[in-house]
Amino acid sequence: MEAYEVFKDLAIILVAAKLFGLIARKFKTPQVVGEIIAGLIIGPSLLGWVETTDFLSEMAAIGVVLLMFTAGLETDLKDLKETGVTAFFVALMGVLTPLVFGTVMYLCFYGFDGFGTEKFLEALFIGTIMTATSVSITVQALRELGYLKGKLGTTIVSAAIIDDVMGIIVLTIVLGMKNGGSSILETLIKTLLFFVLAVGAGVIVYRLFKAYDKKYPHTRRIPIMGLAFCLVLSYVAEKYFGIADITGAYVAGVILCNMRDSEYIAEKMDINSYMLFGPVFFASIGIKTNIREFTLDILLFSVVFVIVALLSKIIGCSLVGKIAGFNWPDSLKMGVGMMTRGEVALIVSQKGLAAGMIEPVYFMAVIMLIIVSSIATPMILKSLFTKYPSPKA
Amino acid sequence: MEAYEVFKDLAIILVAAKLFGLIARKFKTPQVVGEIIAGLIIGPSLLGWVETTDFLSEMAAIGVVLLMFTAGLETDLKDLKETGVTAFFVALMGVLTPLVFGTVMYLCFYGFDGFGTEKFLEALFIGTIMTATSVSITVQALRELGYLKGKLGTTIVSAAIIDDVMGIIVLTIVLGMKNGGSSILETLIKTLLFFVLAVGAGVIVYRLFKAYDKKYPHTRRIPIMGLAFCLVLSYVAEKYFGIADITGAYVAGVILCNMRDSEYIAEKMDINSYMLFGPVFFASIGIKTNIREFTLDILLFSVVFVIVALLSKIIGCSLVGKIAGFNWPDSLKMGVGMMTRGEVALIVSQKGLAAGMIEPVYFMAVIMLIIVSSIATPMILKSLFTKYPSPKA
Repeated sequence: MEAYEVFKDLAIILVAAKLFGLIARKFKTPQVVGEIIAGLIIGPSLLGWVETTDFLSEMAAIGVVLLMFTAGLETDLKDLKETGVTAFFVALMGVLTPLVFGTVMYLCFYGFDGFGTEKFLEALFIGTIMTATSVSITVQALRELGYLKGKLGTTIVSAAIIDDVMGIIVLTIVLGMKNGGSSILETLIKTLLFFVLAVGAGVIVYRLFKAYDKKYPHTRRIPIMGLAFCLVLSYVAEKYFGIADITGAYVAGVILCNMRDSEYIAEKMDINSYMLFGPVFFASIGIKTNIREFTLDILLFSVVFVIVALLSKIIGCSLVGKIAGFNWPDSLKMGVGMMTRGEVALIVSQKGLAAGMIEPVYFMAVIMLIIVSSIATPMILKSLFTKYPSPKA
Repeated sequence: MEAYEVFKDLAIILVAAKLFGLIARKFKTPQVVGEIIAGLIIGPSLLGWVETTDFLSEMAAIGVVLLMFTAGLETDLKDLKETGVTAFFVALMGVLTPLVFGTVMYLCFYGFDGFGTEKFLEALFIGTIMTATSVSITVQALRELGYLKGKLGTTIVSAAIIDDVMGIIVLTIVLGMKNGGSSILETLIKTLLFFVLAVGAGVIVYRLFKAYDKKYPHTRRIPIMGLAFCLVLSYVAEKYFGIADITGAYVAGVILCNMRDSEYIAEKMDINSYMLFGPVFFASIGIKTNIREFTLDILLFSVVFVIVALLSKIIGCSLVGKIAGFNWPDSLKMGVGMMTRGEVALIVSQKGLAAGMIEPVYFMAVIMLIIVSSIATPMILKSLFTKYPSPKA
């Protein structure tokens, strides 16, 4: 293929993704939803203008790694310390409840034939997709309502961050069980080993970066070396530990998140993301999904998937809130605040697709979940806060 | 190839390119020289850690397009109008003299066997590589000496811009003669047609962008749509006119250069360039160049190439300066100011390599030219201005 053929694909993706991203925003849904729909339209499902190529897949792979690295970089470790225990348990239950409910739901649909079987792993993966909270819409809603900085707001935000870490651990373990075909024990050991090594190397790398950053703050070399570190950790994770590259990228971000210039790095990554790699990643999800395979059965599955995903988060998180001493309305707000899903759910699904654990057609369920949760959350939160005001910060 | 294998290549390129880029800067040479040397070291010439892959070639192709688009965006049409006629003829002679001298020099080395032959085209291409002035180092030197804003300074800068446009026209014609195997007339018509259509479409696109920019200034959609436009024009140029994609990218930049947000677009492109695509492009030049093929003959050729390239620019531009009424010292300063070469010479060489018009080993001559000219220009300019001060602005 001539190099310039790539330009055509990229131009179509950029224009379509931006166009539908803006339309999505008009409908108060996240732009990524529009970008995926753009992919559905320009892809084989409808117009057939762009097909999946090796080049696009590799660009998309870089796109995900950039997204996860940025997510890691934006982690605020201080917030975590402050709300500590409560947030930890909110996150824990916010991960475990959907994981269990999602798995059971899949098995109800397609039958149970024993632990550790192919089908069980698929079910487990559907549960895994349900685990990751995307807090950005909740943050936006809380900010508008004036409750972002209170105890409730901080707990939700911290829980969502811890939720990400836990979600990635679950993903790592579940993928490991499939990939290596190895035992759960082996996967656990590899995962543990990776995190231990990453933390060990992380301490050294963090110090190097901190010293370097002090000497040359706000220079190009800082984000470039940061990106290189992220790529190295992604590579090492996949190559030597059989762990998802996005885990490596996320951990690289968390390692560097306390640097003075972490925001500066995140900003540069963000520009690279939204200019090219991000649209390519999200649109390529749409391009890979063939809408013609969408059946009534799958529609039914998707509806139940959305309901289970939302309710399980609300139940899990609200219960912990109540036990931690919040009143019922505040506990409920916590549950609703944690129920939004976003990019990470897609990224996880993408990994599952690559590992052969789910079919592309299930992306539709995930897309529906993102749309519904991101429209419903701000509305429900607003009415809850209006009916039952919380003490302000 | 697994997607994560790409991460390793990219990480190695980023670290090596940045490292040697910084070393190059210590030695007062442009960073791109360091990035190419990094490619030589990590490539098959030495360590063999990274090899040319389809993915890297495509990334590099995007990198060049970004560079040329940014160059176009940074064009200042106002400056051009002010110095007008003189700058035009300085540029014209600054393009024609090296083109002729370079062609003749190649023929002296390898023999002449008629116009229009394969060898004649190769010779013409060596001349073409010599045409493009890179004014950034001269601008830097003039700024430090305090002569950037005077009549002399403005003329040099304007001439360098016009020089770029002419250089790209020459490149387009020479490549067209090779690519289509078509007649010079056909190539000229195609080139003319492209420029006419580009200007026509450009007027419309420019108005659309201007209106859009007024409505949504400094939003992400502006640079994204700009990039899409650049990719479309690059694609159309290659696909339908047989014209180099970089010509399309450059023209796209010039079309948008008068927009209020052109700097904003250029800034975003620049970040995308220096974070990933730029280092990949320059390093991949080094990776493609096999230093083991470097012989004494080629060394001799390179030395003569550098001398001819520098002298021809000085002679051509100084003469026009004198005719336009500058005194001899000022005319000489003009010639020296115009003799620096940079990225564009590499980009042109790269195109010639892709079209099979030069061997990778001749990159060494181009790299030497960049190194020598960028070290010599500021030194010579400084001593000329010290001995023969010009009137200040």
